[in-house]
Amino acid sequence: MPELRKDPLSNRWVIISAERGKRPGDFILPKTEKKGDFCPFCTGNEGITPPETYALRDNTAPDTSGWQVRVVPNKFPALSPEGTSEKQMTGIYQQMAGIGIHEVIIETTDHNRQLNDLSNTERAHVLDAYLNRFKALANDPRLNYIMLFKNSGLLAGASLEHPHTQLIALPLTPKSIEEELSTAITHYNEHNTCVFCDMIQSEIKNQSRIVDESEHFIAFCPYAPRFAFETWIFPKTHQSEFTDLTDGQKHDLSGFWGNILKRQSNVLNDPPYNFMLHTAPISHANKSHFHWHLEIAPYLNNIAGFERGTDYYINPTPPEDAAEHLRKASI
Amino acid sequence: MPELRKDPLSNRWVIISAERGKRPGDFILPKTEKKGDFCPFCTGNEGITPPETYALRDNTAPDTSGWQVRVVPNKFPALSPEGTSEKQMTGIYQQMAGIGIHEVIIETTDHNRQLNDLSNTERAHVLDAYLNRFKALANDPRLNYIMLFKNSGLLAGASLEHPHTQLIALPLTPKSIEEELSTAITHYNEHNTCVFCDMIQSEIKNQSRIVDESEHFIAFCPYAPRFAFETWIFPKTHQSEFTDLTDGQKHDLSGFWGNILKRQSNVLNDPPYNFMLHTAPISHANKSHFHWHLEIAPYLNNIAGFERGTDYYINPTPPEDAAEHLRKASI
Repeated sequence: MPELRKDPLSNRWVIISAERGKRPGDFILPKTEKKGDFCPFCTGNEGITPPETYALRDNTAPDTSGWQVRVVPNKFPALSPEGTSEKQMTGIYQQMAGIGIHEVIIETTDHNRQLNDLSNTERAHVLDAYLNRFKALANDPRLNYIMLFKNSGLLAGASLEHPHTQLIALPLTPKSIEEELSTAITHYNEHNTCVFCDMIQSEIKNQSRIVDESEHFIAFCPYAPRFAFETWIFPKTHQSEFTDLTDGQKHDLSGFWGNILKRQSNVLNDPPYNFMLHTAPISHANKSHFHWHLEIAPYLNNIAGFERGTDYYINPTPPEDAAEHLRKASI
Repeated sequence: MPELRKDPLSNRWVIISAERGKRPGDFILPKTEKKGDFCPFCTGNEGITPPETYALRDNTAPDTSGWQVRVVPNKFPALSPEGTSEKQMTGIYQQMAGIGIHEVIIETTDHNRQLNDLSNTERAHVLDAYLNRFKALANDPRLNYIMLFKNSGLLAGASLEHPHTQLIALPLTPKSIEEELSTAITHYNEHNTCVFCDMIQSEIKNQSRIVDESEHFIAFCPYAPRFAFETWIFPKTHQSEFTDLTDGQKHDLSGFWGNILKRQSNVLNDPPYNFMLHTAPISHANKSHFHWHLEIAPYLNNIAGFERGTDYYINPTPPEDAAEHLRKASI
């Protein structure tokens, strides 16, 4: 019997279609071919990208080789860094200049080493790059949210193969984050607790959706996941912003995050995937009620007419089954 | 300069990234191969599908050949027809049995004739099938919304090639429809007018996003479209529910709708696409404030990490440009 489940953060219902119950080998994705194109992110091609905004380097000059992690503006940015953030009405419609920052975090010099192949130290360096850019961009008063995300694989939206993460800093808070924060504020006013912390405690008690746990972090498949094998990583104690991450947490996370990616890769045969960082908006009176987390979503099913039309989702793999497969995976 | 635009119905912001400005030939989609598999929807294979719930036939027996349009339950339904619609709490989470109806409308006997290839009379027969099923399913008191949608092409989610539409009748109103209806109610309380009617008048006055107009219908690219070349068809005078369609409107729509599909097909070289019918929920005290419409969205860009993470969208084609291409297309 299929089940309808409501995600308590977004209030979005998801159809868990157990009848269609898909196990890891059941997903059939269109074949895509590796491209042999020239890569602007490889060492030696630093002059091709816009000038770097951050790099981990050993006494080498900016925009030359000799780096380990490098951040550059997107050459084809979705938003423009110049302009002001006033909203205007044009007739019945509201608009504003498309200001914002669009950067690319090049995770490694090696074109063929994925994020899950890196050492914990190397992944900690990637986290350092994220943190550096988050802290720098938070100083721009026009910006209110930084969405960090990864498109890995052509089907998941990667137009370049070389391992990279993207960030788009926006003058607005995303709809998804507004909804989660609104839920958190309502929950706090009613219960005097954090809705995310309560969810984590409930998941620990239930155990069936837990994928892994470390000193500081927990990973579970959410109760009403939009996507098959979707997995969320939360800091176990309340922390609103990603930039609150301590050094100790960072070292823990670099290994923990890598293991979750390895589990996904092993169970699903190196699937295309996205991850998205949810953190508190840069400025919001009640931002302390947010609880940052990382959402990892393999790209196994197309978003089609039903999802586009309803904003509900059909997920063929119950999260309890997904979590069991991921728990058992070798890392 | 990119622009941020707010859709007044969903309150969702969209980045219109004119710098990335994509013209029809610029979209590169992964190649997918036609499958030569056995087709359960072709004439002669009626015994393979579950028994039909509707068919346009000339005195032939149900579930035999001799039909023009045929509706059957989905053999692998996302929801189950059996069960009750009570919501329950399991710990902190809300769930209900996954009850609902999942049907397939087989639009023609011809495996290779697309919806836009049919004659107006044939397309009117497809509309008759939709209307028949909407009216029949509205009698089930457990159901509250019927989402009619089409996935055309593998990338847009079609697992079978034979031209078909799907409907999923749900015990809940979709998030997208709740949002639009909520906007319409607020707008009515403030202005005493229909927000959809006001939008149509504004589009007619502005003209830049209009694609086509007939006696009863208008098609335009919305101001803040999620998807490149997205086009909406509205009845020009207020009408809440799709099932309010008159015979005169139906005959007008069968040609008008076909022409919009032909324009999309000609401009974008037969793209994968979805369409989604938005209509009033079956039972809602304020359902008269809804204004039904058809949203047609070619599948030209992947939904990737940014969209999954923010619920905002990046659209590389300004709707004014898309409308101009579609207006000029031969039909």
